[in-house]
Amino acid sequence: MAKEKKMVEAITSMEEDFAQWYTDVVKKAELCDYASVKGCMVIKPDGYALWENIQNELDKRFKETGVKNVYMPLFIPESLLQKEKDHVEGFAPEVAWVTHGGLEPLQERLCVRPTSETLFCDFYAGDIHSYRDLPKVYNQWCSVVRWEKTTRPFLRSREFLWQEGHTAHATAEEAEERTIQMLNLYADFCEDFLAIPVVRGQKTDKEKFAGAEATYTIEALMHDGKALQSGTSHNFGDGFAKAFGIQYSDKDNQLKYVHQTSWGMTTRMIGAIIMVHGDNEGLVLPPKVAPTQVVIVPIRQNLEGVMEKTLEVKDMLSNFRVKVDDSDKSPGWKFSESEMRGIPVRVELGPKDIEAGQAVLVRRDTHEKITVAIDEIPAKVGELLETIQHDMFERAKAHRDAHTYDAHSLEEMKDIADNKPGFIRAMWCGCQECEDKLKEEVGVTSRCMPFKQEKLADTCVYCGKPATKMVYWGKAY
Amino acid sequence: MAKEKKMVEAITSMEEDFAQWYTDVVKKAELCDYASVKGCMVIKPDGYALWENIQNELDKRFKETGVKNVYMPLFIPESLLQKEKDHVEGFAPEVAWVTHGGLEPLQERLCVRPTSETLFCDFYAGDIHSYRDLPKVYNQWCSVVRWEKTTRPFLRSREFLWQEGHTAHATAEEAEERTIQMLNLYADFCEDFLAIPVVRGQKTDKEKFAGAEATYTIEALMHDGKALQSGTSHNFGDGFAKAFGIQYSDKDNQLKYVHQTSWGMTTRMIGAIIMVHGDNEGLVLPPKVAPTQVVIVPIRQNLEGVMEKTLEVKDMLSNFRVKVDDSDKSPGWKFSESEMRGIPVRVELGPKDIEAGQAVLVRRDTHEKITVAIDEIPAKVGELLETIQHDMFERAKAHRDAHTYDAHSLEEMKDIADNKPGFIRAMWCGCQECEDKLKEEVGVTSRCMPFKQEKLADTCVYCGKPATKMVYWGKAY
Ligand SMILES: [Zn+2]
Ligand SMILES: [Zn+2]
Repeated sequence: MAKEKKMVEAITSMEEDFAQWYTDVVKKAELCDYASVKGCMVIKPDGYALWENIQNELDKRFKETGVKNVYMPLFIPESLLQKEKDHVEGFAPEVAWVTHGGLEPLQERLCVRPTSETLFCDFYAGDIHSYRDLPKVYNQWCSVVRWEKTTRPFLRSREFLWQEGHTAHATAEEAEERTIQMLNLYADFCEDFLAIPVVRGQKTDKEKFAGAEATYTIEALMHDGKALQSGTSHNFGDGFAKAFGIQYSDKDNQLKYVHQTSWGMTTRMIGAIIMVHGDNEGLVLPPKVAPTQVVIVPIRQNLEGVMEKTLEVKDMLSNFRVKVDDSDKSPGWKFSESEMRGIPVRVELGPKDIEAGQAVLVRRDTHEKITVAIDEIPAKVGELLETIQHDMFERAKAHRDAHTYDAHSLEEMKDIADNKPGFIRAMWCGCQECEDKLKEEVGVTSRCMPFKQEKLADTCVYCGKPATKMVYWGKAY
Repeated sequence: MAKEKKMVEAITSMEEDFAQWYTDVVKKAELCDYASVKGCMVIKPDGYALWENIQNELDKRFKETGVKNVYMPLFIPESLLQKEKDHVEGFAPEVAWVTHGGLEPLQERLCVRPTSETLFCDFYAGDIHSYRDLPKVYNQWCSVVRWEKTTRPFLRSREFLWQEGHTAHATAEEAEERTIQMLNLYADFCEDFLAIPVVRGQKTDKEKFAGAEATYTIEALMHDGKALQSGTSHNFGDGFAKAFGIQYSDKDNQLKYVHQTSWGMTTRMIGAIIMVHGDNEGLVLPPKVAPTQVVIVPIRQNLEGVMEKTLEVKDMLSNFRVKVDDSDKSPGWKFSESEMRGIPVRVELGPKDIEAGQAVLVRRDTHEKITVAIDEIPAKVGELLETIQHDMFERAKAHRDAHTYDAHSLEEMKDIADNKPGFIRAMWCGCQECEDKLKEEVGVTSRCMPFKQEKLADTCVYCGKPATKMVYWGKAY
């Protein structure tokens, strides 16, 4: 029995130490490992399978809106990175530099892309001539490098995987429309596919992307009450176009600058899945993104007829992503392993069940056990997966809502920040000084100015001047 | 009429200058562009869509054999690259070095991966303990960097996209089996999916991969008679395992070294598709890999009923990857553009056709025109795509066979090499000196020792000593 429980016993409980719990789950569920390069990850098969599912679903949704995939180089010449002033200031301190190719020093050093605005701009400058060439709605799937000082698996690493969309449009309106469209696509994806509720809104000027006119964001709340920025969409206006000379001749033969956007989502969403849905038994995966949706565990598998029936049930479940655990471990071990890995539904099938023409289904999210006739397994599994996906979203939303607090005064805000981990909603005058002070004195940053505004008060929670926006504040990953 | 022909007129003919023809096709078919980093590519939407189709099909075939995808870091510490002597000698002269992270110099420089044997070995050394952990059959899709001096789009660039499989096995037999299995998978993929016939065989010691015990290869013949190495599969034996200390305890509790393999295929296959199938009108795509399989060109599209019928036909073809060209260009321009892009089947649909209840189908590969009743278009298109795929393979094979020559003497070999571009089959004693001399005096390299051996003579074509192998020789990309 001690041996059977090993997988579970080894993980720290969330309540005791959330950060350690996170690290334990990442390791025990075999999602990723540290590499010999500090701050870089080895994404293992179960972690990568999650990324593949995210990638396939997002890519399908992108293409439905007219996105085309391309591939830009890994390297950016230093002079190219420097073309847009705000952008280079934002990124130069954290890029990795290539100085030698083969045995020789390079004439100009190259940075390993931290993001590819400058490469897309350089390309668009040569590729866009006429209004007929617009819009360009390109995306790439790749890895990027940012030389972070402190790193955590999936959440902050020196190299991570992502997609970055980069578009060019004839008008400012069209660019703004695409920026919002992609933000909503990310939000719907998170809510429908990952069962993660998000707040949609705009970043303050302080928090926006280096070089952007406006940055939109979706913010999710983790189980420990910290926020995670989960996807961003930027409207660049014509700033990059002017820096890179990206012009097109309009229908009336006037030379005009294009308007640009970019938007990205990364492997940190795997961190979000872990921290929104996980529990003290390990990972809990939403059925839509789960690489394995159903695991069948035969009990006393060496008895005649058990494996035969197990494989029969597996065939009946061919519409789902199904696996049989016929390893030589004990059923108890297999149960706790399937829980650690977060597989949404477990089918337990032993000789007595078979004799009675039934099986036991176990929900990962609630541990609820349901006995069903073997014939009814496929219908019941389909129904359960839908219910689990739905319930996981509702539970995460209820948790988020229960951990979202309104602060009407600075004292109240400090009290919430110190004692109630979660989102804090409070009014703001729009001035960066107040934002800086709130970070200093309360320890929170502005997460976003939500699209859905409410007027909680007339004045800024910090300075008392007239408020212009309700803002979500919080501590963030 | 001059304007209509523009796209085609701009390309050099293959007979006049094959290298220029290739560059023209790459550019005119909008597959890729040079980037501002010398020797790096921007892969444009039509080029990337080819890679996505290659990737999806290969990935599906990999997974059917039990391959799991992972992701390893982009960087390799210098000390790690140096662990296997032959390997570092092979790659060190052509890697790019990162020396600075952010504003600070690194303590140890990192190379941008040229291939990831060392990273997988480092990972396996920590991850493999027991025979229960074997085999490991991992793969990753990524980009790699090799600091080449002369570059050509898709064929040789400083950064390219590929997949690299890396496996670890308990026994030498199992490793050899996997090496051959993957080579055959590549060969079948090339022949079935890309309609490119290949010769399967083994590389000589001189041409094998840095650190491998044996390298297997598939070699294809381009239209100009030059060879292209199209996929390789390496058996490392236990050489890397010994250098990296990758051991497992066997069932009898003995500590043993694992046996490893690696295998890869790259974006250079897009170059192969161009050079095997293309003609003087541009790209010719095998239907299975073509991003667009059918283009419908409405004639006099502004006349009442034409666009309506066009969209009706498009709906009828929803089982295929189909596009309508309703741009404001002339039909002549659209025809030549669809040919430049290599779309396998064109449907021409004008008012007279519609009145007669028919349409004209045009094969890209043969230019053959077929008039069919509108109702029969889907069936006929399906049949045509299959026929085209089949015929393209047969034509490429006939071309390859017609350009494969047997040389029984050094004089004959020189004469063929000088006057008949293609593969040269000749006997070899197995000694590297003869191989070196043949390169020097005849200008050919050994492409492979084919699995299907024939005894063309008893003696080596160069030194006259007893022959051990029949070898394919040639000039290669
Ligand atoms: Zn204020
Ligand atoms: Zn010889």
